[in-house]
Amino acid sequence: MTVAKVIELTSASPKSIEDAIEQGVKRADQTLDQVEGVWVQELKATVKNGKIAEWRVNMKVTFLLKT
Amino acid sequence: MTVAKVIELTSASPKSIEDAIEQGVKRADQTLDQVEGVWVQELKATVKNGKIAEWRVNMKVTFLLKT
Amino acid sequence: MTVAKVIELTSASPKSIEDAIEQGVKRADQTLDQVEGVWVQELKATVKNGKIAEWRVNMKVTFLLKT
Amino acid sequence: MTVAKVIELTSASPKSIEDAIEQGVKRADQTLDQVEGVWVQELKATVKNGKIAEWRVNMKVTFLLKT
Amino acid sequence: MTVAKVIELTSASPKSIEDAIEQGVKRADQTLDQVEGVWVQELKATVKNGKIAEWRVNMKVTFLLKT
Amino acid sequence: MTVAKVIELTSASPKSIEDAIEQGVKRADQTLDQVEGVWVQELKATVKNGKIAEWRVNMKVTFLLKT
Amino acid sequence: MTVAKVIELTSASPKSIEDAIEQGVKRADQTLDQVEGVWVQELKATVKNGKIAEWRVNMKVTFLLKT
Amino acid sequence: MTVAKVIELTSASPKSIEDAIEQGVKRADQTLDQVEGVWVQELKATVKNGKIAEWRVNMKVTFLLKT
Amino acid sequence: MTVAKVIELTSASPKSIEDAIEQGVKRADQTLDQVEGVWVQELKATVKNGKIAEWRVNMKVTFLLKT
Amino acid sequence: MTVAKVIELTSASPKSIEDAIEQGVKRADQTLDQVEGVWVQELKATVKNGKIAEWRVNMKVTFLLKT
Amino acid sequence: MTVAKVIELTSASPKSIEDAIEQGVKRADQTLDQVEGVWVQELKATVKNGKIAEWRVNMKVTFLLKT
Amino acid sequence: MTVAKVIELTSASPKSIEDAIEQGVKRADQTLDQVEGVWVQELKATVKNGKIAEWRVNMKVTFLLKT
Repeated sequence: MTVAKVIELTSASPKSIEDAIEQGVKRADQTLDQVEGVWVQELKATVKNGKIAEWRVNMKVTFLLKT
Repeated sequence: MTVAKVIELTSASPKSIEDAIEQGVKRADQTLDQVEGVWVQELKATVKNGKIAEWRVNMKVTFLLKT
Repeated sequence: MTVAKVIELTSASPKSIEDAIEQGVKRADQTLDQVEGVWVQELKATVKNGKIAEWRVNMKVTFLLKT
Repeated sequence: MTVAKVIELTSASPKSIEDAIEQGVKRADQTLDQVEGVWVQELKATVKNGKIAEWRVNMKVTFLLKT
Repeated sequence: MTVAKVIELTSASPKSIEDAIEQGVKRADQTLDQVEGVWVQELKATVKNGKIAEWRVNMKVTFLLKT
Repeated sequence: MTVAKVIELTSASPKSIEDAIEQGVKRADQTLDQVEGVWVQELKATVKNGKIAEWRVNMKVTFLLKT
Repeated sequence: MTVAKVIELTSASPKSIEDAIEQGVKRADQTLDQVEGVWVQELKATVKNGKIAEWRVNMKVTFLLKT
Repeated sequence: MTVAKVIELTSASPKSIEDAIEQGVKRADQTLDQVEGVWVQELKATVKNGKIAEWRVNMKVTFLLKT
Repeated sequence: MTVAKVIELTSASPKSIEDAIEQGVKRADQTLDQVEGVWVQELKATVKNGKIAEWRVNMKVTFLLKT
Repeated sequence: MTVAKVIELTSASPKSIEDAIEQGVKRADQTLDQVEGVWVQELKATVKNGKIAEWRVNMKVTFLLKT
Repeated sequence: MTVAKVIELTSASPKSIEDAIEQGVKRADQTLDQVEGVWVQELKATVKNGKIAEWRVNMKVTFLLKT
Repeated sequence: MTVAKVIELTSASPKSIEDAIEQGVKRADQTLDQVEGVWVQELKATVKNGKIAEWRVNMKVTFLLKT
């Protein structure tokens, strides 16, 4: 029997979309074991003075529950 | 780096839609720091004897994770 | 065995969103027994001269069928 | 022949959901003739210190085009 | 005032769809009081050698928060 | 000319998902002629003491109108 | 106070999409007063020998309830 | 670099679905250069005395921005 | 046992929406036996000089697999 | 590099929902290598004389492409 | 009172997804003050000779209205 | 008459989101002529030891059919 839990995170990075996702995964990994994957739900960016200031990603993160 | 977590709550109030949302925020605030915002997903009401007995709101609550 | 039927109503009120929902429930209650609840699908308003003239709610109404 | 244009606004109010919608309509009415109606797309709120600071509404506003 | 929390789980079983859901509920019940209900979001299956190896269910689980 | 009407029912059974659907169809058949089919919209279950108490199905039921 | 009911019909015609919608409206009008409008939900067609045999429309029909 | 803007229009015609779309395009073309295409979002009709009075189309219209 | 396969096509015609769908069905019929039906997913049009140049339909086509 | 293809099937069985899915997988396995999984999109049933005649499942089937 | 307007743009770049979004923001910034953010709706690419020719992004752009 | 077919692929790359899409296009190009474009449906990543192991993209690929 395998049961996984899914949580939802919003994460941001000034560098790139990939980096925003990696930051969220890194943060999730601090408190959760066995993160398996992420699923991007929404892709946004904040703008300042006509330039992208931060890439923002809303994502679901899946990790295994011990059973 | 800012990472926020999103949780989902269902909350109810006999008074009004706004009060149902405020009750959910108040409850979330008891155990979570730095609640930033809510996003209403579904709006329902239970009915008794032809009158609204309770307004019910399903909502997502966002709060900052310490990093 | 419990079976409930779900119907869809559109209801309006000049006062408030809650009142529009209550009007729809009151009307449904005239011809249906045992209305259990409502689920708001869409929230609209008609505008006249730059002011809200009527709040309009499209909702699903659930009531128990006798079995 | 009637053709209406639909624009999307985000509007906020510390008072209530209805007031947030009315503020958006009032603002739209300053530059547009013949606003006909609004359709709420998303309902959010910002939270400060465990209380709702502002109700936020994302909505579509419809107004007639002269032809 | 009743406030319920909603979490998202993915659960699997080689036996049947119902069993996959029951496994997820059983696991949730180990750490949560007062699980009220589940809502199936997605229904999948993994296949090996042309046969269903595991039924997989993504579901939301609702449980009451003490207030 | 064939015209069919679509109604929405919620039905429940302690036994299985299939039985919940069959109960809804049986009830619809008492008052409607010529039920043609059902389309499952939502699949839920209520939980008591960590076990599934009832499978609940929200479904659309189609039946032919005499013309 | 105006309350409208919304029902769902599926209607078909060998001629055209418009005709399929008109057939559904005509049928609804036999038993309902004050049909106000229709909203097409799905557009399908059945095919026989590589040709469209029938245009099929699933639509919601709105009519005023007397109050 | 090509950037296109997308606007949303609602347009109506008593004749046909195609004509309702063409009316919206014709109106958009009066004030916009380089309309490229339309994408139908919703298809409705208003009914009077059991007959279709007007076909109504909600659509997105795309046109190139000069850069 | 009946198993049907569903493919997705995009088809276009300068004449009408119905003709665009028929063109797609005719093309599918050249390589597939037993096309059963189509389900329109998206309705678009390309515009040239303020006039509809082509009606475009994205649709799913269902055909029976031999078993 | 792994690339998988996703196809869409509709499959039916008089026995159960699980059996309808298994029939579709069995049929897909006749012509495709390396079927990995299925994802149920829609769950329907046809009704005859007030009883379920056939469970019908629309599903996506994933299989690996050789690269 | 803050009211923001939301417009929809389609933008393209041969370089990367991020560049396509930045191009759209840069163009919006030429005619709009106070662009606040973007929200990606769709991600596409055009292909020539088996290679990505252009990354295309459909996005909503939010900017503050003066009040 | 132009008719295009749309297929659905899942593709993965350890490098970047763009590379995952390009891998899928390259593979599709081996067996299909005239690939026109791709439309990203879902963006996922698998995680190992707190790092992104692979970017995964589910996408629709469009190619012209000879007629």
